[in-house]
Amino acid sequence: MNFGQITIIGVGLIGGSIGLAVKQRKLATVVYGVGRDERNLERARASGALDRISTNLKEACAKSDFIVVCTPVDRVAADVLAAAQVAPSHCVITDVGSTKGNILAELNGKMPSGGATFIGSHPLAGSEKRGAAHAKADLFTDRLVVVTPIADTDTEVASVVDLFWQNLGARIMRMDPHEHDRALAFTSHLPHAAASALAGVTPIEWLNLTAGGFKDTTRIAAGDAELWAAIFEANRDAVLTSLAAFTQQLERFRDALETRDHPQLIQWLIEGKRIRDALGS
Amino acid sequence: MNFGQITIIGVGLIGGSIGLAVKQRKLATVVYGVGRDERNLERARASGALDRISTNLKEACAKSDFIVVCTPVDRVAADVLAAAQVAPSHCVITDVGSTKGNILAELNGKMPSGGATFIGSHPLAGSEKRGAAHAKADLFTDRLVVVTPIADTDTEVASVVDLFWQNLGARIMRMDPHEHDRALAFTSHLPHAAASALAGVTPIEWLNLTAGGFKDTTRIAAGDAELWAAIFEANRDAVLTSLAAFTQQLERFRDALETRDHPQLIQWLIEGKRIRDALGS
Repeated sequence: MNFGQITIIGVGLIGGSIGLAVKQRKLATVVYGVGRDERNLERARASGALDRISTNLKEACAKSDFIVVCTPVDRVAADVLAAAQVAPSHCVITDVGSTKGNILAELNGKMPSGGATFIGSHPLAGSEKRGAAHAKADLFTDRLVVVTPIADTDTEVASVVDLFWQNLGARIMRMDPHEHDRALAFTSHLPHAAASALAGVTPIEWLNLTAGGFKDTTRIAAGDAELWAAIFEANRDAVLTSLAAFTQQLERFRDALETRDHPQLIQWLIEGKRIRDALGS
Repeated sequence: MNFGQITIIGVGLIGGSIGLAVKQRKLATVVYGVGRDERNLERARASGALDRISTNLKEACAKSDFIVVCTPVDRVAADVLAAAQVAPSHCVITDVGSTKGNILAELNGKMPSGGATFIGSHPLAGSEKRGAAHAKADLFTDRLVVVTPIADTDTEVASVVDLFWQNLGARIMRMDPHEHDRALAFTSHLPHAAASALAGVTPIEWLNLTAGGFKDTTRIAAGDAELWAAIFEANRDAVLTSLAAFTQQLERFRDALETRDHPQLIQWLIEGKRIRDALGS
């Protein structure tokens, strides 16, 4: 497989890892990296993730066959539009955002007709670490990538996006973008909020009394605040729904404990254990 | 160092690991294991964790110099009393329970005068795994053990308990038992409740849409329900206090999101990140 000229917009952990993987697997004639920070781009090129670099999005997209937008979710739509305005009509554009509905809403009716096509993607790979310095060529190996075509998406174009991720070692799942957002509110966004809240209420002088359980449970709270605020805001309604379910579940715990209802407390703990056990270690 | 005859009451993950560590480091003349399940005891002896085994607590404690009670927190006090009734007067008894106040309350006024002495311990080492089969000789290496003497604790006896854990490779911290319980409510018990609640509200059909963040955040939800119910109940008041702080923190998150207060949301995320970053990875 060769995807021609690939342009990566936003060269952080994900964008940098895509560059490394594409180069290692020889999936492109040229990998072009776009970003705001020239030194960051230089470093990514030096690390072997990129062939060419530019701070000018239009210049880097004008001859692209495949574009991956790897900017924060509140900037994806604007970058997709900017790319679509200059890219060749056969160009396929995708992204890696953790939310999909907001991007489609922002793009609605704005994509140039007869021009490049956009289909959303979300690789379920990431880290509380940030930046191209943490990029890894195998970040997507055996990871799931959710691809979110909509009703009028060209099936051939959707297949190109599938193939791209599969060539990076990922598994593909097609999903409705809004269903994706509702699910990710529970499986990713709510856990982040819970981890942040746990860390946030822990008196710092008691941190030496933590062990592996606390470390694991709060690890993702170290994530970037701006990135995560954008994700929560982009998926506001679904996040609030998942939060309501979570606080209701905590109320059941509190009630069982307050009323000394031992069987109810056991039952409540078994509910969580059953689902966690189903996931495996 | 030699602690003479050591008896371990309750040979699970912690008790088994103590046996392995004591034997490996040659800290005892005899390691005696007590439990209800003879086959479990036989396996622990076969694995090298124990020299002698018995299902009769009194028999196994009658000639002990040092006793470690490793049963669930709702059984520790009864086992300490049973051991104290038969142990020599010079014998030092400690435990490994995750809660300390409830044990002292249950023991209050019941220890035989002029007999064996009890001081609580809590090694901050453990796992969502359970049972002697997962025991490891290095479970306590570089881990913190909180030792909780009270006002009338003999300082020499407290030093013996410190030395015991230090000889197993652990670091020691002395702490008031009630302060211990208040701290552990935040650093251990609340995270467990949050992890259980997160897992409990996640629709099982969406588990394939989880990644490392969900896995980490919910890992401890796989812990044993009976063990954890006993811990929550033993530390009820402090757990409810920590839960109230947690739900209040979640309400601040919800308010910032609902009212689209971006600076407040960023500030909230930074609070959690600052504390998690202070802990290290």
